[in-house]
Amino acid sequence: MTKPLNVGIIGYGFMGRTHSNAYRKAPNFFDLPYKPVLKTICGLEAKEAKAFADRWGYESYVTDWRKVIDDKSIDVVDICVPNNYHAEIAIAAAQAGKAICCEKPLALNVAQAEEMVAAVEKAGVPNLASFNYRRVPAVTLAKKLIDEGRLGKIFHYRANFLQDWTISAQVPQGGMATWRLDVKAAGSGVTGDLLAHCIDTAMWHNGPISAVCGLTETFVKQRMHAETGKVEPVGIDDACTFFCRFDNGSLGNFEASRYARGHKALYTFEINGEHASIAWDLHDLHRLSYFDHRDDSIVRGWRSVHVTDGDMPYMDKWWVPGLQIGYEHSFVHQTADFLMSMAEGKPVAPSFRDALATQKVCEAVLASAKAGKWETIK
Amino acid sequence: MTKPLNVGIIGYGFMGRTHSNAYRKAPNFFDLPYKPVLKTICGLEAKEAKAFADRWGYESYVTDWRKVIDDKSIDVVDICVPNNYHAEIAIAAAQAGKAICCEKPLALNVAQAEEMVAAVEKAGVPNLASFNYRRVPAVTLAKKLIDEGRLGKIFHYRANFLQDWTISAQVPQGGMATWRLDVKAAGSGVTGDLLAHCIDTAMWHNGPISAVCGLTETFVKQRMHAETGKVEPVGIDDACTFFCRFDNGSLGNFEASRYARGHKALYTFEINGEHASIAWDLHDLHRLSYFDHRDDSIVRGWRSVHVTDGDMPYMDKWWVPGLQIGYEHSFVHQTADFLMSMAEGKPVAPSFRDALATQKVCEAVLASAKAGKWETIK
Amino acid sequence: MTKPLNVGIIGYGFMGRTHSNAYRKAPNFFDLPYKPVLKTICGLEAKEAKAFADRWGYESYVTDWRKVIDDKSIDVVDICVPNNYHAEIAIAAAQAGKAICCEKPLALNVAQAEEMVAAVEKAGVPNLASFNYRRVPAVTLAKKLIDEGRLGKIFHYRANFLQDWTISAQVPQGGMATWRLDVKAAGSGVTGDLLAHCIDTAMWHNGPISAVCGLTETFVKQRMHAETGKVEPVGIDDACTFFCRFDNGSLGNFEASRYARGHKALYTFEINGEHASIAWDLHDLHRLSYFDHRDDSIVRGWRSVHVTDGDMPYMDKWWVPGLQIGYEHSFVHQTADFLMSMAEGKPVAPSFRDALATQKVCEAVLASAKAGKWETIK
Amino acid sequence: MTKPLNVGIIGYGFMGRTHSNAYRKAPNFFDLPYKPVLKTICGLEAKEAKAFADRWGYESYVTDWRKVIDDKSIDVVDICVPNNYHAEIAIAAAQAGKAICCEKPLALNVAQAEEMVAAVEKAGVPNLASFNYRRVPAVTLAKKLIDEGRLGKIFHYRANFLQDWTISAQVPQGGMATWRLDVKAAGSGVTGDLLAHCIDTAMWHNGPISAVCGLTETFVKQRMHAETGKVEPVGIDDACTFFCRFDNGSLGNFEASRYARGHKALYTFEINGEHASIAWDLHDLHRLSYFDHRDDSIVRGWRSVHVTDGDMPYMDKWWVPGLQIGYEHSFVHQTADFLMSMAEGKPVAPSFRDALATQKVCEAVLASAKAGKWETIK
Repeated sequence: MTKPLNVGIIGYGFMGRTHSNAYRKAPNFFDLPYKPVLKTICGLEAKEAKAFADRWGYESYVTDWRKVIDDKSIDVVDICVPNNYHAEIAIAAAQAGKAICCEKPLALNVAQAEEMVAAVEKAGVPNLASFNYRRVPAVTLAKKLIDEGRLGKIFHYRANFLQDWTISAQVPQGGMATWRLDVKAAGSGVTGDLLAHCIDTAMWHNGPISAVCGLTETFVKQRMHAETGKVEPVGIDDACTFFCRFDNGSLGNFEASRYARGHKALYTFEINGEHASIAWDLHDLHRLSYFDHRDDSIVRGWRSVHVTDGDMPYMDKWWVPGLQIGYEHSFVHQTADFLMSMAEGKPVAPSFRDALATQKVCEAVLASAKAGKWETIK
Repeated sequence: MTKPLNVGIIGYGFMGRTHSNAYRKAPNFFDLPYKPVLKTICGLEAKEAKAFADRWGYESYVTDWRKVIDDKSIDVVDICVPNNYHAEIAIAAAQAGKAICCEKPLALNVAQAEEMVAAVEKAGVPNLASFNYRRVPAVTLAKKLIDEGRLGKIFHYRANFLQDWTISAQVPQGGMATWRLDVKAAGSGVTGDLLAHCIDTAMWHNGPISAVCGLTETFVKQRMHAETGKVEPVGIDDACTFFCRFDNGSLGNFEASRYARGHKALYTFEINGEHASIAWDLHDLHRLSYFDHRDDSIVRGWRSVHVTDGDMPYMDKWWVPGLQIGYEHSFVHQTADFLMSMAEGKPVAPSFRDALATQKVCEAVLASAKAGKWETIK
Repeated sequence: MTKPLNVGIIGYGFMGRTHSNAYRKAPNFFDLPYKPVLKTICGLEAKEAKAFADRWGYESYVTDWRKVIDDKSIDVVDICVPNNYHAEIAIAAAQAGKAICCEKPLALNVAQAEEMVAAVEKAGVPNLASFNYRRVPAVTLAKKLIDEGRLGKIFHYRANFLQDWTISAQVPQGGMATWRLDVKAAGSGVTGDLLAHCIDTAMWHNGPISAVCGLTETFVKQRMHAETGKVEPVGIDDACTFFCRFDNGSLGNFEASRYARGHKALYTFEINGEHASIAWDLHDLHRLSYFDHRDDSIVRGWRSVHVTDGDMPYMDKWWVPGLQIGYEHSFVHQTADFLMSMAEGKPVAPSFRDALATQKVCEAVLASAKAGKWETIK
Repeated sequence: MTKPLNVGIIGYGFMGRTHSNAYRKAPNFFDLPYKPVLKTICGLEAKEAKAFADRWGYESYVTDWRKVIDDKSIDVVDICVPNNYHAEIAIAAAQAGKAICCEKPLALNVAQAEEMVAAVEKAGVPNLASFNYRRVPAVTLAKKLIDEGRLGKIFHYRANFLQDWTISAQVPQGGMATWRLDVKAAGSGVTGDLLAHCIDTAMWHNGPISAVCGLTETFVKQRMHAETGKVEPVGIDDACTFFCRFDNGSLGNFEASRYARGHKALYTFEINGEHASIAWDLHDLHRLSYFDHRDDSIVRGWRSVHVTDGDMPYMDKWWVPGLQIGYEHSFVHQTADFLMSMAEGKPVAPSFRDALATQKVCEAVLASAKAGKWETIK
């Protein structure tokens, strides 16, 4: 009944796997208007691309991304390669009339991001930036609680994204596994990789950011390049913290680091409102902490909500109360929403334009850190 | 390369979904000796069976389980129906030479379970009882830590499985959704449904149980039957607690209830050894708590181990450190192990014989509760 | 204005300190009808008794407890010696017309406890058994929530008291520091020392226990006696678990051990009712966990209530919200309540009669464990 | 034996109580070189001063603080009044040769603080700034772990102090209960009241701060003054966040607010080092979280250390393992250390000079927030 939707994924790394899994699983759990078909996987090495295609059931593999664009049968181009390739691929895909899903951050910088937005909007193609954490059910629930007005006026938005995997000076930069440490491939360090997630969620939850003031640091000043074997200066930010003002009058405080020993992927946020507060933590992504000052005072406290019941966002599709889902499911939800909105002819969020707004904040944070002063977001 | 392995699943309910998902996902993440093919789904209602087949990509559907047994092309019969059908189907499948995976508890009672064990052992077919929680990585890790001797002599094993979904007297018994409350379909209440899991894990971790003394209660004495519409006496145990002695000299304390308000599927265990202790909780299944008395005293405390790194059981197959998996993955691991052991011609645990041992403990607990005295496990 | 109240404490060990501190602090924080005067400390060793008197501001010290009884100026006799002295001292104090506070458990056994109750009731003297945990604010709050009917019908009461300080076989029995391991001084092991607390709280919260079935174990069978230096059989229970039925139809599950590695004084309880549940833990005594099923489902979860606001039991006497009190304060509250009830001529709880009820349950648990069958509580 | 030490406390509010309690309790638990005598309490209202003297056992009370200074018998002057009185009283006390304990923050501003330091150093009198949180055992333990080098090179220091008691616009400013909202009495808002604690601990743990960049906000712009009844502009900062650089190369991130719904006194810090990390939280002040990367990877995790054993800082003076102390005990420890250092003729930390360093950071943060740029700490 449902129409096949041919998907070409470019990039068979970590994100290539999460997206492949999402296209495969979504129709088992969601009632979708399309039946996604894994048409082509594209990756640099033929042998690995073939193995990936076999494992995930792709009909074919290619090593040149242009072949995916040129393939008339492909409906969706899904971009899972390092950041420095996003713009070129996405613009070509837009011009070819494909629907596009692009991993975050959208681009290396605002200039590229603006070209990408212009391209998809000119072509009128469905476009999605893969800020997957919006669709962790607890994070989606947070949005719902805010929109219902349960928190009242917001005073504070606080978010961290803490890791510890680059503390050793022996970790190289560049190459397949560590391109995130190479400024040429990544554009920036924790700002684009980690804070971009925090900023996307924050603006979704709490509206636009008007001005930022930031600080960055690169603790390890030089690292061997994985491809050249040469020790080269490190161009990325190892840590970044910034505070900001939101349009709604609340204050923001953000921090990311890859030098926070003990944390692997500790994305946390906390929102303090007049009546209620919310907190969340990626290390226990299936829980939402909620405090409501309107509770009877003698039984008032932070509630640990186990987000697994059927009335929670997306959770009617999964198992039974008490049984948690994991990280990968955020991509399944994103894919399901993407396909449903496509069928309805409606935009899906976050769009490339939404991702551009995040890119502007990231760029302003980096500029602010360099200049040592506040930057206004235009 | 890998040989196809044709699978027929009997039952399209909650467990039918977890098993279907497992066969589909396992080859995307594990290097398997077989390629599982979803051949046939069997369920009572043709319309629903067809819809299930479409959703999950089954090649066919049937409404009579005997057709699955009779289908020569089917290699594995996977039993996901209520407990009262396990024995008949499993014995027929064994006689037909199929590999068998059977949901837990193995049977309605020890007598049935013994027949099932005899059948599979006589036929020499691969057999697996689906006590899936053994393969939650944190639970597997606990086994590893015990086997390494880190805990030293064990003094206590404590396990609970607490739910709250049957508190309302309006919940019916019987039928598709609530057969677990109908003693004819389920055999027992929380003992077979929940404690069976705890007992399986406990004996795997801590060895055989020699004697038990238990207490059961049925809080709601009669409920409407979903199929007949008649109010009938409730024959199952709503709550069960027992203490026991293990062969290794340690004491056990177990409790299950569906009247523990605030808990959805709170399966917890804690093991106290001479040197170290371990605790786990299904509501946060991706964490293991570990206490080691040999730590420096000023930094000694319960460690919350986030079981997501690549050196954790099964976790090299999934994502990156800090990103959790969920409930369904325990079935994927089980399926992968089942297929790998089958290819190697080795038994997989828990076998039907292992499940029989659990059945004996369950039956002894119920007998003990009825008689108000200790029962020895033979 | 306030009348002096002369106090004689018998025993300068751990409990002698907690009680001395309580009499000193109570008037600084509570508006009391009496001004407690630390008149006399009594202990076996003169030198230590004198040092204790100096440290705590006692007017005098003695080494023979009968001198405390014979001192006409003394109003309150406070018994902080090992259990085997409770009965004799308390009965003498009652006969001398003193108000009495006695550490728990009340006596070595039910027979003694009954004599003590008879003595205080015949003499008509104020009497208090020092089950101090009732007056941890979070535990008092739990009682209030139950009495308000917030939980509805109770299904389960669960309590543990876990320690790990006697795992080493080198810990001696007997003597000042380890009399709790000597059955002659203590009467029993964890049952009287730890479970007595759990049982007292449980019956206060949830009403009488009608029948029990228990199990005990002594893991280390012989230990050196600290006074004689001889290795002697260990007569106490190292671990005890029991389940029970309460008069109100709910089930109880209790366990105590001194072999639970990782736990120092982990007294926990959890109460599951039709509408709500409560949990508490002595290791974080300033918090109460509360779950209310009547909350909106999307923000329903266990609440961690930080019991420090001024509307919490006793907390208006201490600091400001967010600033926690500790273990010793339970004794201050107890002392304040004791003095206030004395001035009003009202009984204070738990009275010796209340403690007798707990003693009966303890004795039944030990008898049940010995006989391997249920015991009814008369 | 021990020499009496006559103490005069100025201020009978919240801090007057914590200090009175500390002088009374310290000798019961610590072996002190002096016996503190509560000589005089000084407060504005005679009736309340008298009641306070009665409750706490002061020998006398006065309403003019100069009488405390002029009293030759008084050895220690303890300043517990609003910040705008600190300098004048402390300087007079120094000139009179008294030992001085002064509540934090030391002064309204750096200029005052410098005069105070000059005065005590010129007079050569013992001087202590009451940053009590240093002596919460878990916080002291953190210092010990850092000094032992367990963390290795430090990358991040993060601290928050979050409250929610001034969200309502109906809370007045000024007067006895709410002088902290009146800029004339307090000097600043959360910066001096809350961040001063965080900064003091941070520099003790992690060394000097070299430069700061901050942001402040006043959410409620005008409030009624409690004394005049007039609505006046609010001059304090309701919220303040800043980041900074420490001399050792690590980055700091600090935030305080009284608009963080759900937090009463949530002072938290986290320190991330090369090898290990530490975290602490005032709402559970008896625990320290510790992560050590050198642990075996499969049992590596954040440890929750229950700081109650006898080998923990100060804890040999209190109860037994597992039994927690509370907020007030930090003052008892501070007082004990103050008296012991005084007897030894050694300075005690934090001295007025230490507090001046904190004052400089606070002032720089406020200046930075006003100017919107970094400020260097001289």
